[in-house]
Amino acid sequence: MGASTEGGWTYSRSGVDRGAVAGSLARLLAQVHGSSVPSHGRPVHLPGHYAGLIRIGRETIAITTDTIGTKGLLAEEVGAWEGVGEDIVAVNVNDLASVGARPSALVDTISVAKPSPEVFEQIGRGLDRGLRTAGITLLGGETAVVPELVHGYDLGGTAIGFFPRGRRPVTGSGIRPGDIVLGVPSSGVHANGLTLVRRLLREHRIDLAAPRPGGPGPVGLELLNPTRIYSPVSEAVADRPEVQGFAHISGGGVRNLARLSGRVAFVLDHWPVVPSLFRWIQELGAVASNEMFQTFNMGIGFAIVSRPRRLSETLRRLARAGAADALVIGHVERGRGVRLPDHDLAYPAY
Amino acid sequence: MGASTEGGWTYSRSGVDRGAVAGSLARLLAQVHGSSVPSHGRPVHLPGHYAGLIRIGRETIAITTDTIGTKGLLAEEVGAWEGVGEDIVAVNVNDLASVGARPSALVDTISVAKPSPEVFEQIGRGLDRGLRTAGITLLGGETAVVPELVHGYDLGGTAIGFFPRGRRPVTGSGIRPGDIVLGVPSSGVHANGLTLVRRLLREHRIDLAAPRPGGPGPVGLELLNPTRIYSPVSEAVADRPEVQGFAHISGGGVRNLARLSGRVAFVLDHWPVVPSLFRWIQELGAVASNEMFQTFNMGIGFAIVSRPRRLSETLRRLARAGAADALVIGHVERGRGVRLPDHDLAYPAY
Repeated sequence: MGASTEGGWTYSRSGVDRGAVAGSLARLLAQVHGSSVPSHGRPVHLPGHYAGLIRIGRETIAITTDTIGTKGLLAEEVGAWEGVGEDIVAVNVNDLASVGARPSALVDTISVAKPSPEVFEQIGRGLDRGLRTAGITLLGGETAVVPELVHGYDLGGTAIGFFPRGRRPVTGSGIRPGDIVLGVPSSGVHANGLTLVRRLLREHRIDLAAPRPGGPGPVGLELLNPTRIYSPVSEAVADRPEVQGFAHISGGGVRNLARLSGRVAFVLDHWPVVPSLFRWIQELGAVASNEMFQTFNMGIGFAIVSRPRRLSETLRRLARAGAADALVIGHVERGRGVRLPDHDLAYPAY
Repeated sequence: MGASTEGGWTYSRSGVDRGAVAGSLARLLAQVHGSSVPSHGRPVHLPGHYAGLIRIGRETIAITTDTIGTKGLLAEEVGAWEGVGEDIVAVNVNDLASVGARPSALVDTISVAKPSPEVFEQIGRGLDRGLRTAGITLLGGETAVVPELVHGYDLGGTAIGFFPRGRRPVTGSGIRPGDIVLGVPSSGVHANGLTLVRRLLREHRIDLAAPRPGGPGPVGLELLNPTRIYSPVSEAVADRPEVQGFAHISGGGVRNLARLSGRVAFVLDHWPVVPSLFRWIQELGAVASNEMFQTFNMGIGFAIVSRPRRLSETLRRLARAGAADALVIGHVERGRGVRLPDHDLAYPAY
């Protein structure tokens, strides 16, 4: 057990120091003044910054880039790659879904120490399934064989999307007290918190091929279950005037809601029972709830902020789009940040 | 010396096996049938595949993704990062330039073992310079701290562009015997062949802080000179009816020309004197010329295939766009592949 008993694991102690990332990134961005030439398209400022937007001709194009992080290392340990192929699509189109953009195409990036045809085939199978679910096409990609630079597989991609005629980006700017927060369940840990999870698996010598207590199958495969794709969810309600904001509950957990508006408080007082997978992880590392909810999705992978009116119509549309499991998880109040009263948690900001 | 004397170094022996990459990638792509829903945009088939194209509304959007490969490892050895920041922009917008797309925006991806604020600041400075040269904006990015996955810095990005009203993608489909090939010089090795170069530097214990014989400055910095950005070159002539094709002479070297058309031969009988940096690399590793020209740009980073008429007007436009150094390097004949008669080289296909 060792270090893990001294107050429990945090994501920072597992090797990911959010403060260091933010500090370094700030230094980079301070240098980038860019050069936005009007004839090259006009950037659209978007406070939530899940995706970047640029106006080209009459279209507004949304772009987002993301990797699956260390989930590929787990795929390597388990020897199952199809799920992470699907994750490449999911982590990107879910960020497009968060601004209400209809996804259009993906390019993938594979940095690899040594390419294996079998692994590539499995990744391709997962990619294809993700592309079909999102209704998009693979427009290209880059495969870099860089054994000195990476271990195993560093998998990522970039997705672009657009706003169908008449639809405006869903930014959260209209969110106000009295709105409700709907949640759409996740399909597992998705692609977040894996560095911490893998530390715990190693430390406790967990057999990836065996189920955890009460688990549905080998825990390795359970953790590799691909990220749920929320594009159909977003598409189903993005044009509704009631809908004010979307949040992809990815890295940063529920704090992502605070990215939508800094002028209100999101009170998540109907959070559903946390799936047993997360409770098992929490116990394994004696991880504080505060840390769990800002590292993992804790059962809800996508949130929708809406006026309370016409809720049954919204739920009907979500059900038709494959999200019959959507539910009300909270509401918006005066204040700031994100609160989970049942868990005694309060995050003052993103 | 050891292995390097047995017939000379090849890119494959330095750790990059092109055949293995192609084989693995083919397995991946065989699985990807995708799902192109008309309402999500219509992919445009482009044989040269430097960039993917998709039609969204009235716009055709071009997208390309690339990394700088192992050039980041050299930046780490030298301790100079500004150039590779600029490379992130260059490697992507140059691929857009190859289809005649006007670049619009970039997202960057940094996978890093441990972020350093000083390094990020230098990368930011280079990024900014690249963005300004290309006239584009940074629309977002992803910074992944993944110490178990990467050594140092894995740097890449994705760029999008479009075709101004009236311009069609420059595909090479109209190339025919009698056309001429113009070349625009490179600014050094750009971001290709670095795995081989670094092997040779190590093997010969080259002091990166000292100039090579006849070199302009420390060889480390000479090799890190940022990739020339060819977007202004492409923009200057992409609307000319004489211009039939562009080639970015990146990984694959002059063979990239064969991607433009499989129905003609590109005869590069006026290749300029190969810059001394490449001749030094070649001697260091006893690298065959055949290998040099398919691994490095050998002094020409971008090629333009054009009808021979109105050449002086084309050269005037290129000069106004900062490419007064463009020159005729060959012509198109009946046949297939790429030939360099002065170097006794013939590549039958890409």
